[in-house]
Amino acid sequence: MAIVVQKYGGTSVRDVERIQRVADRIASTKRAGNDVVVVVSAMGDTTDELVAMAEQISPQPPGRELDMLLTAGERISMALLAIALHERGIAAKSFTGSQAGIITDRVHRNARIIDMTPGRVREALDRDQVVIVAGFQGVSQDTKDVTTLGRGGSDTTAVALASALGTDVCEIYTDVDGVYTADPRLVPDARKLDFVSFEEMLELAAGGAKVLQVRSVEFGRNHGVRIHVRSSFSSADGTMVGPEEDMEDAIISGVAHDTSEAKITVQGVVDKPGVAKTLFTSLAEANINVDMIVQNVSEHGHTDISFTVPRDEASKAGEIARRLVADVDASGVTVDLEIAKISLVGAGMKTHPGVAAKMFTALADAGVNIEMISTSTIRISVVTAKADVQVAVQAIHAAFGLDAAPT
Amino acid sequence: MAIVVQKYGGTSVRDVERIQRVADRIASTKRAGNDVVVVVSAMGDTTDELVAMAEQISPQPPGRELDMLLTAGERISMALLAIALHERGIAAKSFTGSQAGIITDRVHRNARIIDMTPGRVREALDRDQVVIVAGFQGVSQDTKDVTTLGRGGSDTTAVALASALGTDVCEIYTDVDGVYTADPRLVPDARKLDFVSFEEMLELAAGGAKVLQVRSVEFGRNHGVRIHVRSSFSSADGTMVGPEEDMEDAIISGVAHDTSEAKITVQGVVDKPGVAKTLFTSLAEANINVDMIVQNVSEHGHTDISFTVPRDEASKAGEIARRLVADVDASGVTVDLEIAKISLVGAGMKTHPGVAAKMFTALADAGVNIEMISTSTIRISVVTAKADVQVAVQAIHAAFGLDAAPT
Repeated sequence: MAIVVQKYGGTSVRDVERIQRVADRIASTKRAGNDVVVVVSAMGDTTDELVAMAEQISPQPPGRELDMLLTAGERISMALLAIALHERGIAAKSFTGSQAGIITDRVHRNARIIDMTPGRVREALDRDQVVIVAGFQGVSQDTKDVTTLGRGGSDTTAVALASALGTDVCEIYTDVDGVYTADPRLVPDARKLDFVSFEEMLELAAGGAKVLQVRSVEFGRNHGVRIHVRSSFSSADGTMVGPEEDMEDAIISGVAHDTSEAKITVQGVVDKPGVAKTLFTSLAEANINVDMIVQNVSEHGHTDISFTVPRDEASKAGEIARRLVADVDASGVTVDLEIAKISLVGAGMKTHPGVAAKMFTALADAGVNIEMISTSTIRISVVTAKADVQVAVQAIHAAFGLDAAPT
Repeated sequence: MAIVVQKYGGTSVRDVERIQRVADRIASTKRAGNDVVVVVSAMGDTTDELVAMAEQISPQPPGRELDMLLTAGERISMALLAIALHERGIAAKSFTGSQAGIITDRVHRNARIIDMTPGRVREALDRDQVVIVAGFQGVSQDTKDVTTLGRGGSDTTAVALASALGTDVCEIYTDVDGVYTADPRLVPDARKLDFVSFEEMLELAAGGAKVLQVRSVEFGRNHGVRIHVRSSFSSADGTMVGPEEDMEDAIISGVAHDTSEAKITVQGVVDKPGVAKTLFTSLAEANINVDMIVQNVSEHGHTDISFTVPRDEASKAGEIARRLVADVDASGVTVDLEIAKISLVGAGMKTHPGVAAKMFTALADAGVNIEMISTSTIRISVVTAKADVQVAVQAIHAAFGLDAAPT
């Protein structure tokens, strides 16, 4: 029998009623003659609520104990889902990450899967049982402690299980019906994509599209598991994420935006070797995630270095930069919390010249000022004022005709 | 260093504020130079809430999945407690029942501990860490599934851990400050007992006193672990439960009452061998817990058999009895939901004649009619109308002078 791996996110199992609906869908997949493995997230905002309780007690809860706490969430949703399946006459068994053989390193709160030993999953499938696995969690190889895979880690659990079980597609059910050419809340005529390549999906996710965890896409790409992103509220096909060779030849796939970052500029840096090294080493040591980095052309031996960081790390990053101002012979530091990052992503752009020019023209015509630019082979990102985000995304979306299907 | 085992119940860790208070107490026990092992229940009504969600989905949730669900409760409380200890500068590590080596049979929802392998607990103690263990849960020896030990099972977890770690006292913190001569809500001058024997505690618990799980008392008696029942809201000594030889010579320890049972009477049974066997075998096969059984003296070859069962099993039990009426040549079945069971418990009564007579006299003088009587060597139980419970308990409490300390 074919093994179908399905992952349901927190909104899909938000309450008992939605769990019942998910159980109906799983039951019909099973009755259609498939072996079914389900990965499930915690119900609704459970994880956030648990984190909030921990933070009431300690501003910096120890990782091991926080992971122990958070994994209670999937335990609840997976057991309720198994109970709902039993009630439908479907034999089902729930397994924790540890029981399902999700073996990780020991980096609490952000562990990486280093091995998969799903012996108990296979046994249950052999007994014709639906298997329900707790998403987001694993067990550390050496210390046998409970670990979690980071925000959105259930996607990675699902893709890793699909790979370990030799299945080449993993279904990710969510509250949207696929990946769009832009966020439909910003661009009403945004269009659902039938297909995006792994590389494009990685750039879209890095650019702010929240539909899949970046690591799950990397896992899918590295292990040849296609990811079908679809809605848990309909039976329509969603978006398939797969290898580039599956692709039709659209130049551009979509526009992502992210308003959760801040921009920090170190001004008037003396243009000599080692300055960037000093700055970014200090930031790394403080565990600050730097995203875009742009260094302008040197004028008269001085230059500006700008970079973006998550907004809630901006004040810490600004402080570190200010402390270094003397060391790097800079004249000052500015922190701008009101920015947006807008990214145009498309595997086709690497063979089509003029994409950047067209994007910048669209922004200029819309009166949007560009503060930073950074590019990869299949992505162009710009930073603008946060107030411009909707106008900018709409202008780019229109300029590239993304509302119409590729011909 | 001495190992102190402390168990905190659900009311003691009801919210974050109470968890902080419990953490303070543990921290001071640790700072006083003890090795500390803490067993913790789920916060407040968490377990009931989880059961209610499961029952929304299925009237009879499968045991394996219900156990998976319920064990989320202790996971939350123990992790929060460990976080609170870290915040106080005390190294602490939480362990699930499985991680702590609580090995059980596979009777879901009511598993029995069959082995203890607390290797990880000892390791953590050797590293000077406070150990926090999830109460109420274990792992089945053969199937490696998560199990629970039944209502109040955290008491048993604590006593079993104390025994496995070679400690001869286990502290049970609760929302009352010890075991009383009667329920203070019924008898305002009820007195806290300094000591009760294991046997008396078993009889009191069976008689309706809810302060300790029966199985934990059995475990303590069989393995020589004294149980100190005390309040988590004060530092006063509570009640020590221990072997009879520790006892001062009070005749009577206390009066327990239970209004959660129903009485079923099968009338006019022909007095011949095998009748009781047929009836109680059928009840056992239906998993109905029968408590008291009384068969009256036979008159003219016919007799009545009365027995008590938990009230929520009364209609099922009545139905079974009615179905058997013809088989056992009986004339009818009555079910009485409005009863109370009142038990007088005291290790001293076995060597003091006249205790029963004094109790019955007290009840008669108070105008309370006795419907059933059953006795053990250290207990006399009567069934009365539910409406009489307070009058009956007060009358017995006064007749035996239980408000005054024994001389």
